[in-house]
Amino acid sequence: MKVRRRIYQSNLPLDEALKKWQAFLNRISPTEEETVAVSDSLGRVTSRAVFAKISSPFFHSSAMDGYAVRFNETFGASETNPLKLKVPEQAVPVNTGEPLPDGFNAVIMVEDVHQEGKFIVIHSPVTPYQHVRTVGEDIVQTELILPENHLIGPVDIGAMLAGGNTEVYVRRKPRITIIPTGAEIISPGEELTKGKIIDSNSYMIGAMVRQWGGEWIRDEIVPDDVDLLKEHLQKAVEHSDAVVIIAGTSAGTKDFTSHVIESMGEIILHGVSIKPGRPIILGSINNKGIIGLPGYPVSAFITFELFAKGLVYRLLGMEPDPRDTITAYLSRSVHSSLGHDEFLRVKIGKVTDRYIATPIRRGAGALMTLQRADAIVHIPAMNEGIAANTAVQAQLLKSIREIEGTIVCIGSHDNALDILANQLKKRYPAFSLSSAHVGSMGGLMAIKRGEAHIAGTHLLDESSGQYNIPFIEKLLKDVDLQLINLVYRQQGLIVKKGNPKGIRSIEDLTRKDVIFINRQAGSGTRLLTDKCLRDKGIRPEDIHGYDREEYTHMGVASAVASGVADAGMGILTAAVALGLDFIPVAKERYDLVVPVKYLEMPQIEALISIITEDREFKSMVQNLGGYDTSDMGKVVFEQRR
Amino acid sequence: MKVRRRIYQSNLPLDEALKKWQAFLNRISPTEEETVAVSDSLGRVTSRAVFAKISSPFFHSSAMDGYAVRFNETFGASETNPLKLKVPEQAVPVNTGEPLPDGFNAVIMVEDVHQEGKFIVIHSPVTPYQHVRTVGEDIVQTELILPENHLIGPVDIGAMLAGGNTEVYVRRKPRITIIPTGAEIISPGEELTKGKIIDSNSYMIGAMVRQWGGEWIRDEIVPDDVDLLKEHLQKAVEHSDAVVIIAGTSAGTKDFTSHVIESMGEIILHGVSIKPGRPIILGSINNKGIIGLPGYPVSAFITFELFAKGLVYRLLGMEPDPRDTITAYLSRSVHSSLGHDEFLRVKIGKVTDRYIATPIRRGAGALMTLQRADAIVHIPAMNEGIAANTAVQAQLLKSIREIEGTIVCIGSHDNALDILANQLKKRYPAFSLSSAHVGSMGGLMAIKRGEAHIAGTHLLDESSGQYNIPFIEKLLKDVDLQLINLVYRQQGLIVKKGNPKGIRSIEDLTRKDVIFINRQAGSGTRLLTDKCLRDKGIRPEDIHGYDREEYTHMGVASAVASGVADAGMGILTAAVALGLDFIPVAKERYDLVVPVKYLEMPQIEALISIITEDREFKSMVQNLGGYDTSDMGKVVFEQRR
Repeated sequence: MKVRRRIYQSNLPLDEALKKWQAFLNRISPTEEETVAVSDSLGRVTSRAVFAKISSPFFHSSAMDGYAVRFNETFGASETNPLKLKVPEQAVPVNTGEPLPDGFNAVIMVEDVHQEGKFIVIHSPVTPYQHVRTVGEDIVQTELILPENHLIGPVDIGAMLAGGNTEVYVRRKPRITIIPTGAEIISPGEELTKGKIIDSNSYMIGAMVRQWGGEWIRDEIVPDDVDLLKEHLQKAVEHSDAVVIIAGTSAGTKDFTSHVIESMGEIILHGVSIKPGRPIILGSINNKGIIGLPGYPVSAFITFELFAKGLVYRLLGMEPDPRDTITAYLSRSVHSSLGHDEFLRVKIGKVTDRYIATPIRRGAGALMTLQRADAIVHIPAMNEGIAANTAVQAQLLKSIREIEGTIVCIGSHDNALDILANQLKKRYPAFSLSSAHVGSMGGLMAIKRGEAHIAGTHLLDESSGQYNIPFIEKLLKDVDLQLINLVYRQQGLIVKKGNPKGIRSIEDLTRKDVIFINRQAGSGTRLLTDKCLRDKGIRPEDIHGYDREEYTHMGVASAVASGVADAGMGILTAAVALGLDFIPVAKERYDLVVPVKYLEMPQIEALISIITEDREFKSMVQNLGGYDTSDMGKVVFEQRR
Repeated sequence: MKVRRRIYQSNLPLDEALKKWQAFLNRISPTEEETVAVSDSLGRVTSRAVFAKISSPFFHSSAMDGYAVRFNETFGASETNPLKLKVPEQAVPVNTGEPLPDGFNAVIMVEDVHQEGKFIVIHSPVTPYQHVRTVGEDIVQTELILPENHLIGPVDIGAMLAGGNTEVYVRRKPRITIIPTGAEIISPGEELTKGKIIDSNSYMIGAMVRQWGGEWIRDEIVPDDVDLLKEHLQKAVEHSDAVVIIAGTSAGTKDFTSHVIESMGEIILHGVSIKPGRPIILGSINNKGIIGLPGYPVSAFITFELFAKGLVYRLLGMEPDPRDTITAYLSRSVHSSLGHDEFLRVKIGKVTDRYIATPIRRGAGALMTLQRADAIVHIPAMNEGIAANTAVQAQLLKSIREIEGTIVCIGSHDNALDILANQLKKRYPAFSLSSAHVGSMGGLMAIKRGEAHIAGTHLLDESSGQYNIPFIEKLLKDVDLQLINLVYRQQGLIVKKGNPKGIRSIEDLTRKDVIFINRQAGSGTRLLTDKCLRDKGIRPEDIHGYDREEYTHMGVASAVASGVADAGMGILTAAVALGLDFIPVAKERYDLVVPVKYLEMPQIEALISIITEDREFKSMVQNLGGYDTSDMGKVVFEQRR
């Protein structure tokens, strides 16, 4: 096998790339039209103007309960000279909505007449068409109801039907064929073995196509074979309006894609200076758009939105709406490389009256970071970074209501937090708990900086043996807060099932045949590890793997389960979840820090009610194993200035 | 037939009504769950938490192109003491994305090695798992991917699949049965005769249900028959999660609805003090929500959104998002009756840097006003009105992008404007022309007040015989503007086909057997009418129907076509459109006023390019009949201070 270096044929700045692509889009036409029933036209786009075929109302009707009369028979009526009209010859009883009898042209309200046998008595003349809903009062025949290129909504459907239209010309839904490629790619549900990757990208971007109003077809997975890819691409171009080729995440397939597109049509550009998403390929075959999408899921998402959305909308004859944005303030500085537009995933929390954007992990392969993100911040290419507290425009991935109902929890991870997040959403659909796992110390700093509403922490103070409180008194001395216990939990060494290396204590970590997996600096578990090592007089450099850090207990457990490491410090629950063995080291207290100013937020009240009162929650946590919930919800410390 | 007065059993303030309804909603449960393929779950709502079944990545893979090595075989390598590793026993070539061979635990980048025959030479040791994408780096097995009650989006689909889930538990889509009632109601496509009304409401609100994530079934139309309605309601309750009964617009049916609901279950409330939408009925049968919706389309829309949205979302286990709002400034004062919450339809224009909200017509039956509206302004019950220039919260019916791309055109109506609106949207999908028809004078005032970007005007100055310019010099003397000709057009008397009343001139309007239909004060056509009357010495009070006003030419033509009137002043085009006869009176100039400050807005530039350059547009206008387009696009007057 030959080791290749990737070569991008060009590396265009984003704005130039968008301009080149737009020039191509301007050359392609919207899809042809088809007729659909108006009743079935929600979300479709008109391909012709829709005019009213009839007026609405279609006839004169009474706007009141009363009597229909002829206005010229009411002349001369007054208080001093009342007039009698004969029922039904001169005055016909009508209810609201009923048509006026032929020849009648006004309505007198029932309140304004006296009944006298077969007559009604009136005291004033009426004006023509008084209290009458006349023909065309709402819609006038021939009136424009909808222009061409209009996205049809519920009210449009009502108006078209009321205007006598039962069918409407709309653009055929653009059909996008998605071809996943790469010998390592398998379909969801197929047996997953080492070296294989599930094709989740096709379905993610297919759903995006559907959201934009198009249809998508997933082609078979095409392994790394130029001729086969050509064959598939040929067929796809014939049967669809645009084609997306998703590159495998391995290096080879990308070269195939550009080679194949070039041999059948034209490459518009290959490589854009953005992060993530640099290896995007845009081309055309027979004047149909061809997109070569990077295989890493975050790159796929970002580039698909940047380039494919405009394509689908163009095919529909529409202009895409940009994402809603809000002004948010960066909670910490962000470095970015000059010359690249970067799309930064952030979490957003409304803390006091400001939206605070906290950057999250950047890897192009980390789909969960995108799933957890609330917004994307675009850092332009000429910036080397953005300083903390800078106002930025955050493009929302969630609704403002959702973001405002979200509790931002930053700090140490615990599996009980996942259960808590689910229980909150279950009991209070408007609220969410969104966790970022940066360790206990990171959580306290996030509270200090106003980035988070709550923080999970389990920091052991070496000298006092106390949990959390000494750190709060040092780091958060200016913050009024409550410290609420969530659980006590068992920490220890997580080792492989059956403990094949016979690890029995901290001392075994120094063995040459043992690889350790550590937690990141600032995490409570790291403090615990370091304390144990110091107690035993072990130097970190004597432990293999000490400098490799995971950010969660499950990350540590997973590293052990998969063979990356032989042992790591973590909680019993994580070991139990993955069927691993566990050597107990310490029982520790895991608390939540909640500043007093947030206690009255409805979502925080809801969260605390679950911790203190929800029996289902308590028993679900107990079922995880390794937890002592006896103090759950207890305020273990309160600080007020 | 008995004339009844409508009686509302109560007339609750809106907030109390919402509270009562919410109390009921809190008692009902979400729909039961079902499983769907993850690939088909877009827009569905989770009924259980989704956890990762596998880690992603599922294996250790190289994050770089290079060589996989065992880290402990690299100890001691340095610049002065390079180390040789044998290929492939100690160093296996790997491309990005490829799995690490068993037992290998780090990667050296290809750039960092020398190849020497069957060996590679390295100059520094590596750390464990350097340049390796480890198992679970993205998703860790057992991790919470989605909580319960989560609306599934494209990224969620990707994450679920990547986490090994191919099926997901979701809530069954709530099924809402809609029963249209009223003997006067017919289905779209059925023959429309006098007294009949097309059921457009069912389809409008059905589309709303679909937008919210539910399904809807339209029942047969039930005429005004208590027993039949009971029968239908009974079946609907059995087969659906909630039922909507749409009242006919005639008075009788409403009483049926509340009577029938009461006999089968419970009325929660009947009548809410809102405008429009007062006669809403909310009830329950077997703990299922029953909504009796008013028959007027705007009332139906407003009340359905107020009360049914929460119901559908509750059935889905979600909380509805409120509409996006913006702060806008009222262009004129609005009066509102104390004691009613009013929902005012407004048009919004971004004029200079402010959003200006201009109230439009209020009738509950005017669906087109809702279709044309950009937003709804809620006037609370304790307000008697809102003064001009007051900042209000406008709940958007369209996207901000759409609103910002909209040209607000206020003034005189002309059919050529409809053609222009369509052509603009066709050529420039991002832009719209939205017209409000308030007459020429109203248009000039709208320009003066900054409510409109352009105004259509055809005002004849009696003394000079000049069109438009004298009025501009008087009313808009402080505004830099251009006056651009759109068309010359023929004004005259529109009369019935065959002219059965033998109307030949203005003088005939005074005849006892002739009913006139007038245009509103301030319209150019009204000025023309009044000038003609003065020229002939005719007093307005001698004309029957002089005080009945229509707002558009088509409104006048429609009034004549339907028999409301025998004659009205209007343009030839309107007569032609409805197949009416026409007696010419004058040829007049119809111009557009465009303030200079708007000339460089891209949508105004686009509009002017269509007027000046688009041949298709010109020929479409000519085809309407009655137009002289010889000066189309000519700047007939320019005013700069």
